[in-house]
Amino acid sequence: MSKYSFLDDYSEGCHPRILESLSKTNLVQQTAYGDDEYSEKARSLIHEQIKSSEIPVFFVAGGTLANIIISSASLRSHEAVIAAHTGHIVVRETGAIEATGHKIISVQSDDGKLTPEAINTAVANNAHFPHMARPRLVYISNATETGTVYTKAELQALSLVCKDNGLLLLLDGARLGVALTAGVNDLSLADVAKLTDIFWIGGTKAGALIGEAIVIPNPELAKDFAFHIKQRGGLLAKGRLLGIQFMELFSDGLFFELTQHTNTMAQKLSDSITALGYRLAAPTESNQVFLILPDTLIASLKVNYDFYVWEKVDKQHSVTRMVTSWATDEKQVDALIAEIKKLSA
Amino acid sequence: MSKYSFLDDYSEGCHPRILESLSKTNLVQQTAYGDDEYSEKARSLIHEQIKSSEIPVFFVAGGTLANIIISSASLRSHEAVIAAHTGHIVVRETGAIEATGHKIISVQSDDGKLTPEAINTAVANNAHFPHMARPRLVYISNATETGTVYTKAELQALSLVCKDNGLLLLLDGARLGVALTAGVNDLSLADVAKLTDIFWIGGTKAGALIGEAIVIPNPELAKDFAFHIKQRGGLLAKGRLLGIQFMELFSDGLFFELTQHTNTMAQKLSDSITALGYRLAAPTESNQVFLILPDTLIASLKVNYDFYVWEKVDKQHSVTRMVTSWATDEKQVDALIAEIKKLSA
Amino acid sequence: MSKYSFLDDYSEGCHPRILESLSKTNLVQQTAYGDDEYSEKARSLIHEQIKSSEIPVFFVAGGTLANIIISSASLRSHEAVIAAHTGHIVVRETGAIEATGHKIISVQSDDGKLTPEAINTAVANNAHFPHMARPRLVYISNATETGTVYTKAELQALSLVCKDNGLLLLLDGARLGVALTAGVNDLSLADVAKLTDIFWIGGTKAGALIGEAIVIPNPELAKDFAFHIKQRGGLLAKGRLLGIQFMELFSDGLFFELTQHTNTMAQKLSDSITALGYRLAAPTESNQVFLILPDTLIASLKVNYDFYVWEKVDKQHSVTRMVTSWATDEKQVDALIAEIKKLSA
Amino acid sequence: MSKYSFLDDYSEGCHPRILESLSKTNLVQQTAYGDDEYSEKARSLIHEQIKSSEIPVFFVAGGTLANIIISSASLRSHEAVIAAHTGHIVVRETGAIEATGHKIISVQSDDGKLTPEAINTAVANNAHFPHMARPRLVYISNATETGTVYTKAELQALSLVCKDNGLLLLLDGARLGVALTAGVNDLSLADVAKLTDIFWIGGTKAGALIGEAIVIPNPELAKDFAFHIKQRGGLLAKGRLLGIQFMELFSDGLFFELTQHTNTMAQKLSDSITALGYRLAAPTESNQVFLILPDTLIASLKVNYDFYVWEKVDKQHSVTRMVTSWATDEKQVDALIAEIKKLSA
Repeated sequence: MSKYSFLDDYSEGCHPRILESLSKTNLVQQTAYGDDEYSEKARSLIHEQIKSSEIPVFFVAGGTLANIIISSASLRSHEAVIAAHTGHIVVRETGAIEATGHKIISVQSDDGKLTPEAINTAVANNAHFPHMARPRLVYISNATETGTVYTKAELQALSLVCKDNGLLLLLDGARLGVALTAGVNDLSLADVAKLTDIFWIGGTKAGALIGEAIVIPNPELAKDFAFHIKQRGGLLAKGRLLGIQFMELFSDGLFFELTQHTNTMAQKLSDSITALGYRLAAPTESNQVFLILPDTLIASLKVNYDFYVWEKVDKQHSVTRMVTSWATDEKQVDALIAEIKKLSA
Repeated sequence: MSKYSFLDDYSEGCHPRILESLSKTNLVQQTAYGDDEYSEKARSLIHEQIKSSEIPVFFVAGGTLANIIISSASLRSHEAVIAAHTGHIVVRETGAIEATGHKIISVQSDDGKLTPEAINTAVANNAHFPHMARPRLVYISNATETGTVYTKAELQALSLVCKDNGLLLLLDGARLGVALTAGVNDLSLADVAKLTDIFWIGGTKAGALIGEAIVIPNPELAKDFAFHIKQRGGLLAKGRLLGIQFMELFSDGLFFELTQHTNTMAQKLSDSITALGYRLAAPTESNQVFLILPDTLIASLKVNYDFYVWEKVDKQHSVTRMVTSWATDEKQVDALIAEIKKLSA
Repeated sequence: MSKYSFLDDYSEGCHPRILESLSKTNLVQQTAYGDDEYSEKARSLIHEQIKSSEIPVFFVAGGTLANIIISSASLRSHEAVIAAHTGHIVVRETGAIEATGHKIISVQSDDGKLTPEAINTAVANNAHFPHMARPRLVYISNATETGTVYTKAELQALSLVCKDNGLLLLLDGARLGVALTAGVNDLSLADVAKLTDIFWIGGTKAGALIGEAIVIPNPELAKDFAFHIKQRGGLLAKGRLLGIQFMELFSDGLFFELTQHTNTMAQKLSDSITALGYRLAAPTESNQVFLILPDTLIASLKVNYDFYVWEKVDKQHSVTRMVTSWATDEKQVDALIAEIKKLSA
Repeated sequence: MSKYSFLDDYSEGCHPRILESLSKTNLVQQTAYGDDEYSEKARSLIHEQIKSSEIPVFFVAGGTLANIIISSASLRSHEAVIAAHTGHIVVRETGAIEATGHKIISVQSDDGKLTPEAINTAVANNAHFPHMARPRLVYISNATETGTVYTKAELQALSLVCKDNGLLLLLDGARLGVALTAGVNDLSLADVAKLTDIFWIGGTKAGALIGEAIVIPNPELAKDFAFHIKQRGGLLAKGRLLGIQFMELFSDGLFFELTQHTNTMAQKLSDSITALGYRLAAPTESNQVFLILPDTLIASLKVNYDFYVWEKVDKQHSVTRMVTSWATDEKQVDALIAEIKKLSA
């Protein structure tokens, strides 16, 4: 890849501290299947963040796997999931949730978020029992698939509506790091643990090679969770690989430092390019920047940079999506801005 | 862990060359989801071994996941798997195959292997259609769960009986490395590719951190395989992590060098301890050594070493299982032998 | 139930000829599992209607079961169904299709029908492989859940778009009888067999006690079909019960006679009540009549009749749904019309 | 079928009283989906037998469907079933239980029964959590698939071992009628309800056209049961068909009268033919008679009678299986005995 890529937030490996830690611990013999010292240390570091040492934490290799395991562990076969129509489980997981036997009740959403009203409506429209699957698990993502971020008030309201309706709240945190360090954010990890039944903290998009940490505040869901990890193929013999990564990410604030950098780079792109007179197609809340650019400009930029052209706006303009990551090189950001400036002069 | 462990072959990290390679490539931007250069390179190195550049190769994080994906991709819902009653999918995967909807027809086996006769009997006993699920996939492991190894003649015979009965042959290669470098082995990777429909090469137990390479000689099974990887949660955004490891393992013969070392260490334990007058409970074909030792000796050894006590033989003796790995330290092997010698004097 | 019910089309038992036939054949010993003489006879009578003696026909007890078996028999685990958002499998089967592991891609529909455009859009929006399940089976109902009926031109267009996209076409015929005898209909059973890959003829709502006949024009889908019937619990020991009913329904045109009566009664209700000045909420195409009536009138009618009040139109009016059946007593229809006339005077 | 058949107990239709009842109620409008008056009456008649008016009773069309629904309603995805290797769910249901995602732990059994020892062993051998599915549901049949019958002491012992191990006890009663009227029986329906968590009473093989009554003494299992009936395709619109049949079977002791006749006919065959000097391959406990007959005699009998030839005993003898039913004509039994007498003279 000779161009510099703003395609996604998983084009590079991992933060160098993780590689160092892997090297340092490499030949120390450890108990398998997640019972190693590093996984224990990672758990206790996460416990510090969520201000509870009782809440179970499990590590798995990827996000779709996390969602599969969580669905399987949380639901009886007649129970359904409520999700925004833009949700990752709805549009990017090859029917993985349905493959575990569960219906997803898909709800239209303008900004990738669910609202209490949307949940109440979904519940009301799915109440003709036993002819309808019973809504049981509400799936949200933070940041959402389009980069928007939930506020504390919004999450509190969702939490409440779930409790009122006997629903479980699952937060997919593939991009929880950029959500929690976003400008508009007022949530802490401890808040998330307080307001959800189960959530996961994405490592892959926050500087790890792979790995997501599943946190289970609701003890009912935690009970037999390990069975589901194993049954769905998620129990790694060398669980240390996941433990070491989260141990590093949650030591000395590395996780937040990296996701903060990710957001800063996105904000710089967003602010600098709009300052040149270009418009955003959606506000830049986390690490996805949706800019409306002239097609001629896009063509020129594509020589040195990679990014998605999302959709046509009119005959001469398109929406582009640029994504930043923990590894985004600020020099490349500056160079891209300079090139747009030059080409727009 | 203060004792030296012979419990399993996944107590350490990975071969240092893998960590070096991860470091060297770390910040190079790559295409996601297994379409990176390193995965491509790994595929071509495996192609050299199997003497075919056409056979699809996919990488996934773990063995149970590999078996889940393969079952789901190979079988229609009314089709069943035939496996030895000792098979990993029968006894150590939490019903993962059944969780994808498929029955396993379990066949008694003395040594962990399947035979043509056993397969023919299973087919004959499961022919009352449509009241019985149709046998379709034959599952074998090489090395088996108890360390035995298939000869070329045995695998050819299985391959033939499968073809005759319209069955697909799957070889679980979690420990394929130690099988192919075992003393009794006369199979090559190319033979395995010729005689099976689908098989996987275990990385986790052969010096990688994680990762198994699924090789699909039968083009019918390869067709939509990527869907199943994704649907079962096995498609890693940073597929490079798996590619890099197999690229290293299959460069300069590292894979075979490490698994040869594994076998050599097991053979040394086996030979040296039997030379002291102790008997084996089963022949040492790969990296599992089953020794019958006095309980008093076992108790003394347990101070400095970890290994499984398998079962009682009589009032004063038990079968022990010692497992060696790519990382087994020969000095520790020597020290263990010396200690037994001393304690037996 | 002291009131006369227009709630649904399954409130009575079955046509008396069926009971007579059950009695007459009762003690004749027959082969089990659908291989009895009556099922054979029923098959050949259906073959006459579809003008083909080669097409396999199977009988099962109910409609949801038919849809479950068909999904399971037609789809690999990574394949999805396209259906209107009003489809029975979407809203009234408790996630039965998802429980077999398959995603339903739900498509908005104004009148309960799918269109070629809707299918093309669904295919285009679900093409990001392998991150999305592959659309494979298109599900339509005729009559639809809201009583509308497909024309021959419409079904031909759907058939074509399916072939063009490598999709299978399934027609749920729970109410196929009233569709084929509807005023707007120009399809024959033979047309349906020519234009679909698989369809079923509803007996339950056409004068049988239970039973649906699954007809499989696409030989690929028929191959192992019996396994799926058995695996999903649909293979009745006394298959004769289903065979006898379809034998009677398809002898001497009884099926069409009964469904014609059903439509005639609906049309009479619809025509007579609109003649009194009341409006329809939707055209009466088959046996569901959606009338907008004053709430005061509804309250009065509810004393002697049962029917659904669908939704409020304004402060004083609501949409009602009246359903007729093969058993609807014309005297009750006349009496209801007379009562409305009297109350409206 | 010109020969008289002793092949199975489902070759005829149903007891005439059922047909009369269907005729008498035929045009009475009823609420759908099992909420009709006849189903209610049937439930209260069963309540009398089990001496409890609180225990939920549901009706479904067939036995495999009953087992599917019960598994799905009783088990979480990581939970397994323990069954004898001869169990219907193990060998005659096309992997239906596995298709709902659950592993069956198959236990060798000499006589079709499970014992406390067998269950304890299965539990002990499946305790390596979370690498093994957790045993949760114990499946037994009474009468068993080979015609043996549980005594009260045996069922009490199973019930106890289940409670001790946190297991649920399911009794498949496809042939519960002949079990409860067998000579060796000392169980009542009330005992069965007291000693199991869930069981079903087979109608199909006891004089009904179709239908099994699922009785759920354990309230935990009953809670959302209706969802599972619907989701698995078992909720009949005209539930009255099932209700009417069980209403008749449990009125005036018809159920027990018919199954008593069934046993009497089997016992007559068994006693009379053994009196002629032939041996049984297994004791005749219910309605399956396993006789060892000369192959020449078998060939002669096959001219006028149908029955299974089970397996060769020696060069000149085979085991035959003759099955009687509620409809078995005593004249035919007498004629068969007479023919054997004549041919053996």
